[in-house]
Amino acid sequence: MTEKISVEKKVLSENDKLAADIRGQLKQRGLVALNFVSSPGSGKTSLLEKTLSALKHELRVGLIAGDVQTENDANRLKAAGGTIVQPIVTGGACHLDAKMITRVLPEIALDKIDLLLIENVGNLVCPSSYDLGEDMKVVLISTTEGDDKPLKYPGMFRRSSVMVINKIDLLGTSDFDMKRVKENARRINSELKVFEVSCRTGQGLDAWFHWLKSLVAAQH
Amino acid sequence: MTEKISVEKKVLSENDKLAADIRGQLKQRGLVALNFVSSPGSGKTSLLEKTLSALKHELRVGLIAGDVQTENDANRLKAAGGTIVQPIVTGGACHLDAKMITRVLPEIALDKIDLLLIENVGNLVCPSSYDLGEDMKVVLISTTEGDDKPLKYPGMFRRSSVMVINKIDLLGTSDFDMKRVKENARRINSELKVFEVSCRTGQGLDAWFHWLKSLVAAQH
Repeated sequence: MTEKISVEKKVLSENDKLAADIRGQLKQRGLVALNFVSSPGSGKTSLLEKTLSALKHELRVGLIAGDVQTENDANRLKAAGGTIVQPIVTGGACHLDAKMITRVLPEIALDKIDLLLIENVGNLVCPSSYDLGEDMKVVLISTTEGDDKPLKYPGMFRRSSVMVINKIDLLGTSDFDMKRVKENARRINSELKVFEVSCRTGQGLDAWFHWLKSLVAAQH
Repeated sequence: MTEKISVEKKVLSENDKLAADIRGQLKQRGLVALNFVSSPGSGKTSLLEKTLSALKHELRVGLIAGDVQTENDANRLKAAGGTIVQPIVTGGACHLDAKMITRVLPEIALDKIDLLLIENVGNLVCPSSYDLGEDMKVVLISTTEGDDKPLKYPGMFRRSSVMVINKIDLLGTSDFDMKRVKENARRINSELKVFEVSCRTGQGLDAWFHWLKSLVAAQH
């Protein structure tokens, strides 16, 4: 196991170097970059579709859509009006890493965008360890998943700056308690900014769009 | 990367040896063992709670509840009437492995149980590579997750023998299509046995319980 751990450390330290380099490139252009993480099925692609549709006439958005197999998500995002959508198929790997981002970054015209949104692989564990050079991680959780998730997957909630609670239209169909999920999340990370949304009904999305625009505006 | 891959291969081959040893121990006692895998929040613990409550007077069930942090799941399963519930807290690792099972197996009185149920870490990617010595993997998916999950996480659906579709009481609240999820799953694995259940309403659970009992009966 010692050998495995030392290789992991080496991989992570190489990843951090590449991520710092990516961060430098993005900063130089005044670009905001967000890394979206969650369980499979929490609604990362739905949130990105809605975001793209709402903001495409106001902001220039670039997207990187990571997936284990298939380019389904990238295709959905292109259909939602994405002009710069770059798929990454990890081919089995359980997370995106900085090397994968470095490889596709030349495909994205960084001087033509204001905001870079990266959709990670659906996984609440592994992506938390890999810095992609983003400004912050946004963790999604949905009301159908159980309000104990922040306690059970603390690494991800600790390393995220924002928590988006999706599927609030389904509140009441399970024992999910909105107050409890926030308490659980803030026990792990007292600084978490929280949005409550339904990508299906649109509820709460305006506050999310407004915040994204203010993030970009703060760079200019 | 070559170094990383060779270490991974070595880890997996050591895991397979330990898993074969576990499988031998279980077979010798005529025990059936199932490894439950899914995204976080699909309802693994709920399904195990219901299963335990329903079968505890007919079958002697042992449970291993894996989690990244917390013993929440193990505590829920004890409260549901589990007499043999062994938690494994992986402390950050994204999957259970055979070494963790080997370590806790002496805590479980194998000659006092008929059925061993292992709840893996919530993760649709990594646990697929780690044989725990089980007879089969049972993959859960819930109707709130999206019917494309089998295509997006094919490794898990390929290596599972059974797919339990949970939260059927919420059908109609999203675009999830029951026919399509089965087609998608069977494109990956034509042999998958499918159960449709709601742990909340109890719908479909009888067929699941019946199948578990027939599995155990077949060993005697």
